[in-house]
Amino acid sequence: MSKPEVKRLYINYKTLEEFQQFREYGLEELSMLEDLQANIVEDDSESPFYGIYDGNRLIARMSLYPIDAKYDRYFYPPQTYYELWKLEVLPEYRKQGYGTALVEYAKSLGKPIKTNSRCRADEFWKKMGFVPVKYNPIRDRGENPYIWLPEGVESQDDHQAE
Amino acid sequence: MSKPEVKRLYINYKTLEEFQQFREYGLEELSMLEDLQANIVEDDSESPFYGIYDGNRLIARMSLYPIDAKYDRYFYPPQTYYELWKLEVLPEYRKQGYGTALVEYAKSLGKPIKTNSRCRADEFWKKMGFVPVKYNPIRDRGENPYIWLPEGVESQDDHQAE
Repeated sequence: MSKPEVKRLYINYKTLEEFQQFREYGLEELSMLEDLQANIVEDDSESPFYGIYDGNRLIARMSLYPIDAKYDRYFYPPQTYYELWKLEVLPEYRKQGYGTALVEYAKSLGKPIKTNSRCRADEFWKKMGFVPVKYNPIRDRGENPYIWLPEGVESQDDHQAE
Repeated sequence: MSKPEVKRLYINYKTLEEFQQFREYGLEELSMLEDLQANIVEDDSESPFYGIYDGNRLIARMSLYPIDAKYDRYFYPPQTYYELWKLEVLPEYRKQGYGTALVEYAKSLGKPIKTNSRCRADEFWKKMGFVPVKYNPIRDRGENPYIWLPEGVESQDDHQAE
C-alpha cells in the first residue's frame, strides 16, 4: 500500500455529512453544523479535523486541537500542545494502517500530543510511541491519558519527580 | 424485577479484579491497584465507584467523582457537582434497567451531574432527564457533555444568555 495521504478537513456540508458515518458524532459536530447554517463560520473554513479519503469517501479521521500553554498540565516546559481525539477508522477500512498514518501525521507536526486511550487501546498507543501518564484524579477525571513527547520535552510528572 | 440495589464500592483486591471485566479499564484502575499494593490506601477504603451485584458478581458500575465548586464551569450558581463516568453494564445484563438504576441513584444524591455521552448514547441520557450543553471547544475538548440539573440549579450557558 502506498502511504495514505492525510488531509486537513475543511468545514462544509459534505464534510459534516461524512462525519455522520463515524461512531463518535455529537455536540461538537452539531455545533459546527449550526455555525455553518448561521453563517458564523464560512464554508470551507479550517477545522481541527484531519482525515484520509478513499476516492471521494472519508474513511478515517482525527481531531487535533491546540491547547494553549497556559492550560498545559502535562508537559515540561509547559507549552502549546495538541489534544488528539476522535481517532476513528470506518469498520471496513480497519487494520490497514490508516489509524497509524493519522497518528504519524500528528507527530510530524512536532508538538507534544495528549490523547485519551479508550476501550483498551493502550497497546496501539504504546506502539505509536506514546506513554501513559501518572494518573491524577483531579486532572485526568477518569480518562486514560497517553502522551507523546518530542525531543527536548518532558512530562510534568517526570519533571516533578526529579 | 425488584429494584436493583446500588452499593458504594470499596477498594480491595476483589473489586479491582472485578473491574477487569469492564471494557473501560485503564490508568485509574491501575493506579488504585498500585496504591493498594503500596499500602497508600487501606483495604476497603471508599472509592468513587458505585455498582450493582448479581449475587457475588459485580455486573454494573459507574464512577461519581465530586468536582469542587472552584472548578465548576457548567452550573449556576457554581457549586460542587458530580462527574459521572464509566457507566457500564456487562453485556449479558444489558437492557434490564441496571444502567437506569445507577443513574437514578446518582440523581438521588441531589447534586448536579455532568457526564460525557459517548458512542451515540444521547437518547439514553435525554430519557434520564439530562440535557446537552452548548458546546464550548475550550471547555469541552471533543466531549459530548450532558448535564442534569436539580431544582434551583441552572446551566452556566443559560445563565449567561439571560
